[in-house]
Amino acid sequence: MGIPGEEAENIFTLKDLADGIRLRRFIDRHRPERAVIIGAGYISLEVAEALRERGVETTVLYRGEYPYSGLEPELGPIIADELKARGVAFRGRVTPQAFTTRGAQGAQVVTDQGSFPADLFFVGVGVQPNSEIAREAGIVLGETGGIQVNDRMLTNDPLIFSAGDCCEKFHRVTGKPVLVPLGDIANKEGRVAGENAVGGQSRFHGIVGAACVKVFDLEIGMAGITESQAKRLGFPAISQVVEASSRVGIYPGVQQSLLKIVADSSSGRILGGNWIGRDGEARKINTLAVALYNEMTLEEISRLDLAYAPPFSPVWDPLLIAANLLKRKVKK
Amino acid sequence: MGIPGEEAENIFTLKDLADGIRLRRFIDRHRPERAVIIGAGYISLEVAEALRERGVETTVLYRGEYPYSGLEPELGPIIADELKARGVAFRGRVTPQAFTTRGAQGAQVVTDQGSFPADLFFVGVGVQPNSEIAREAGIVLGETGGIQVNDRMLTNDPLIFSAGDCCEKFHRVTGKPVLVPLGDIANKEGRVAGENAVGGQSRFHGIVGAACVKVFDLEIGMAGITESQAKRLGFPAISQVVEASSRVGIYPGVQQSLLKIVADSSSGRILGGNWIGRDGEARKINTLAVALYNEMTLEEISRLDLAYAPPFSPVWDPLLIAANLLKRKVKK
Repeated sequence: MGIPGEEAENIFTLKDLADGIRLRRFIDRHRPERAVIIGAGYISLEVAEALRERGVETTVLYRGEYPYSGLEPELGPIIADELKARGVAFRGRVTPQAFTTRGAQGAQVVTDQGSFPADLFFVGVGVQPNSEIAREAGIVLGETGGIQVNDRMLTNDPLIFSAGDCCEKFHRVTGKPVLVPLGDIANKEGRVAGENAVGGQSRFHGIVGAACVKVFDLEIGMAGITESQAKRLGFPAISQVVEASSRVGIYPGVQQSLLKIVADSSSGRILGGNWIGRDGEARKINTLAVALYNEMTLEEISRLDLAYAPPFSPVWDPLLIAANLLKRKVKK
Repeated sequence: MGIPGEEAENIFTLKDLADGIRLRRFIDRHRPERAVIIGAGYISLEVAEALRERGVETTVLYRGEYPYSGLEPELGPIIADELKARGVAFRGRVTPQAFTTRGAQGAQVVTDQGSFPADLFFVGVGVQPNSEIAREAGIVLGETGGIQVNDRMLTNDPLIFSAGDCCEKFHRVTGKPVLVPLGDIANKEGRVAGENAVGGQSRFHGIVGAACVKVFDLEIGMAGITESQAKRLGFPAISQVVEASSRVGIYPGVQQSLLKIVADSSSGRILGGNWIGRDGEARKINTLAVALYNEMTLEEISRLDLAYAPPFSPVWDPLLIAANLLKRKVKK
């Protein structure tokens, strides 16, 4: 990360299994009472949850206003509330500047918003493709810094395939290459690359940005692009927020949820959505993921036949409600 | 139903709210100890669950071998096991012949497999469209017995629209009219009929047979048609059963699930699927529902970008695993 002092023994990152074992061993041996986490992506928040499970007082510092910079801003306060309710102190708009040390141990992280002491520090501030070895070998990298591949996962060298976090993925919604370091995508790409490497004709069809995360009991599903991403890319983006419920309102166990969808106002095509809730909502995001794959319009989505039963969804699925509302804003 | 004796005071059906209130009042007043349910569709099994919640000893009698005749046979034993585990006695291949009575009360139901005594009987043996009034008014009924409508929900009378359980729905997978008495479909049709009745140009795009039900803790999602339905309709049907899990195998709370998908062996097009499990699996069936709506092939489905995180699914979503396996059987 490049923060002075970050080489101290009690400052951790999490890139591989060995890092995880090291972190757990430190906790077992030193029983830290206070932890400070720098960063608020999904790895950082999973670590925060794990530390709370171990009874460690935990503070999360983040440069953005709310956790998960890639989400719609409407979700931010909901996630921040969940962290607070579960005993995690979240501090947004904080820039770390240095660690102070006491012997071989980090003592405080100094930021533009004051100093935060802790017995354990965790730094989870994003990933970059480890594509240096490829670049040195003459493999072409894309603008993202990832290895360029075609839909057969072939690099510019006809004998070298690439798959996984190091290589770019084709984003079906934006039509552009992106870096998305997720295990399920790496798995699919690996299969395609492997089949082609032994003479097959397999193609990877690209991604739609489908992902889900858990923050304590909160479930977050996402697919496609956010409204601000869409606008930045030049789409005439419109959006709709729906406050929904996980089941029919009278059904025991019902939980509130929030869905935001984004579409292109001229074509009516769906561009993305974020869904946050507590009662299986994250599992519903794939409805939207398949709609995105098929470049469906709001009109088509609003007519989808989706499974309904009172324990599992309201009569009108929140995605249908959102599409019904947002399609009125599409230019005819 | 037409079983002699069925007019007795303690023999119930469930068609509207008043029926439900009547049933509950009877239970409150008479505290029945034993109930016999005739039929094993979703209404019957929901009543069985409610009766067990009230501590009533409950037996379900059904003409078929396993509950829910519209499901893939692989699901039958799983549902039967769940009923047994929850204290419901299930008896398949039973044909009721008559009720014996004691005064105004039904005493036993006599069947080809012996007599079953109870203090309360519930009859849930399917629904038929109440389309008589339409027929008498000269409205054309289809082969299903339901009211024929076009995609604007208009009957053969240009001033009369029809929506809901009484009218036929266009099944997008089979291309044929069907009767599917479900509340969410009725809701959507009502909106289309209403918009058109006031001069709109709204169209209903048909259904894909998406539905879900809960049987105690078991969740069942279904979409499209089953293998036997497909074969009956002349599709060259192939199928794949996958035993899967609801989360990554090491994740706390993981539950086993079973997914069966059906496809057309010549086109590779997906035709349907059933998914049964316990940990949010029913909510995943809409992934398949949207794939069916878009007439996706197994090849396309196997490449879908679906949201993955360890608490919510295995790395390879069971639907992708099933599509990857089944696509090998498609004729090239």
